[in-house]
Amino acid sequence: MANDINAVVVGSVALDTVATPFEHHADVLGGSCSYACAAASFFTRCGMVGVVGDDFPDGYRALYDRFDIDATGLQTAAGKTFRWSGVYDGDMINRTTLVTELNVFEHFRPELPEAYRSAGYLLLGNIAPDLQLHVLDECRSPHFVMADTMDLWIKTQREKVLEVMQRVTMLMLNDMEARLLAERYHLRSCAEWLLERGPRYVVIKKGEHGALLFSKDELFIVPAYPVNKVVDPTGAGDAFAGGFVGALAETGGEDYTSAVRRALLYGSVTASRNVEAFGLDALEQCGRKELDRRLAELARMTDAGL
Amino acid sequence: MANDINAVVVGSVALDTVATPFEHHADVLGGSCSYACAAASFFTRCGMVGVVGDDFPDGYRALYDRFDIDATGLQTAAGKTFRWSGVYDGDMINRTTLVTELNVFEHFRPELPEAYRSAGYLLLGNIAPDLQLHVLDECRSPHFVMADTMDLWIKTQREKVLEVMQRVTMLMLNDMEARLLAERYHLRSCAEWLLERGPRYVVIKKGEHGALLFSKDELFIVPAYPVNKVVDPTGAGDAFAGGFVGALAETGGEDYTSAVRRALLYGSVTASRNVEAFGLDALEQCGRKELDRRLAELARMTDAGL
Repeated sequence: MANDINAVVVGSVALDTVATPFEHHADVLGGSCSYACAAASFFTRCGMVGVVGDDFPDGYRALYDRFDIDATGLQTAAGKTFRWSGVYDGDMINRTTLVTELNVFEHFRPELPEAYRSAGYLLLGNIAPDLQLHVLDECRSPHFVMADTMDLWIKTQREKVLEVMQRVTMLMLNDMEARLLAERYHLRSCAEWLLERGPRYVVIKKGEHGALLFSKDELFIVPAYPVNKVVDPTGAGDAFAGGFVGALAETGGEDYTSAVRRALLYGSVTASRNVEAFGLDALEQCGRKELDRRLAELARMTDAGL
Repeated sequence: MANDINAVVVGSVALDTVATPFEHHADVLGGSCSYACAAASFFTRCGMVGVVGDDFPDGYRALYDRFDIDATGLQTAAGKTFRWSGVYDGDMINRTTLVTELNVFEHFRPELPEAYRSAGYLLLGNIAPDLQLHVLDECRSPHFVMADTMDLWIKTQREKVLEVMQRVTMLMLNDMEARLLAERYHLRSCAEWLLERGPRYVVIKKGEHGALLFSKDELFIVPAYPVNKVVDPTGAGDAFAGGFVGALAETGGEDYTSAVRRALLYGSVTASRNVEAFGLDALEQCGRKELDRRLAELARMTDAGL
């Protein structure tokens, strides 16, 4: 069925080598597209758009299958898969990048399979803004487009980032990126500035402290689910984004008032599960029930009972 | 009336000289006792226990009066008032202490006026733990005792801090202090460790990201009210503590389940107001209505509508 892809995620696919003070893992399946698709797959049928090299392990394709992710949009190019390597500090938050080898990702040109073009929900991962615009051109009329970005594009392609903002429903970025883009410090005034430039919603992520949702007339404090242990924080932001888009697609409809809040909480609990193991291991072992349980718990943890 | 003091706050009274990247103010009324009492005074009749020197300005005594704080417990000693001076970074969070002159605070021995000894609610500010124990001995049978502490006492008088913990209802401390005291990193496991050592509640403050309330069977995420502008963050933690104890005293009763959550939210909004001007200026200009408005707003900002 051409219409069964409800959410499309565009982003990077990487083989990550990650060290924490406690463990070291090489060639772990990563990249924003992997994390976001896996997270979205709990809620909706999801198609991925990305590129890997001819060295990409079959085992990881099988893993996408187990998540029931549609990988028709995953291109295979001659050469090596994008590789990233980093080391986390003892706080499990700050990290140092050791190696970034773009490899086949350097010349990535996203192309949407026909079956993806009618998808209602689109997550533009933090690829170059001109590629994000290209993907937008390929989509028929998505209900909801969420774009991520990163410091590199804000610094080098600011005008293009602003162009993307005019065409998306939601911009999601972290606190430092929001400050860099809006050129001011306080997050509320950053959000005001960003909202004036197009998106209906702005989500500012604050790492382990959760996130803030802004629109012209509301502010929602998205709590982080307090985990007992962080094993590998890589991909938390992407799992948050993917869980959000997936859960929003699951609800559907045009009334976002409560759907966006619910979906952000699902993003939050999906991200919280993701950091409890390396790569996609934790999400692979997780069922929807576990996410529902955490969502209910999070609702209790924020219920002021007023 | 002997019984009209409902909450007692013990702590420091200081004359602060504070510089931010934008403003510089000298000899501002500060100290944990000043901030906490002012915050508590919105909700309940509050008595202060502290010490000042003979240089303490009459204008500041008049300010306490305007907050309707009972200052019978404020001792005046020969010598100079405690002075602190610091400079905030551009983030308005990190600060460098330039000067700490303990002056009369060095030999402070808190004594509770008779009218304070039957108060139901007690806030032990971050004075030395043996002084906190002395104050506990002077109280008849408070319903609820909340103790703050600081890195200095954890490092130098660890055993005494643990002794205090056995005798209080709630320990409130910031994330770094919790990690220092519990000797572990994740806040949930810090809280577990702390709860095993006496207090029924542990509140871990996370600065501008709010706080977490822990008990044996609950976890409540206390959101920070997102302010538009931080003018002077000094005293935010003390205003949070004082607003909390005041609001809890206002509710009264023995059933803390929802009262503690409500009071923590009041602490949060009182602290948010406090940072919008230097010293106690913002709280002085603030009415209870403004706090109620922010509380209702905060409830909406965290309502997931699930």
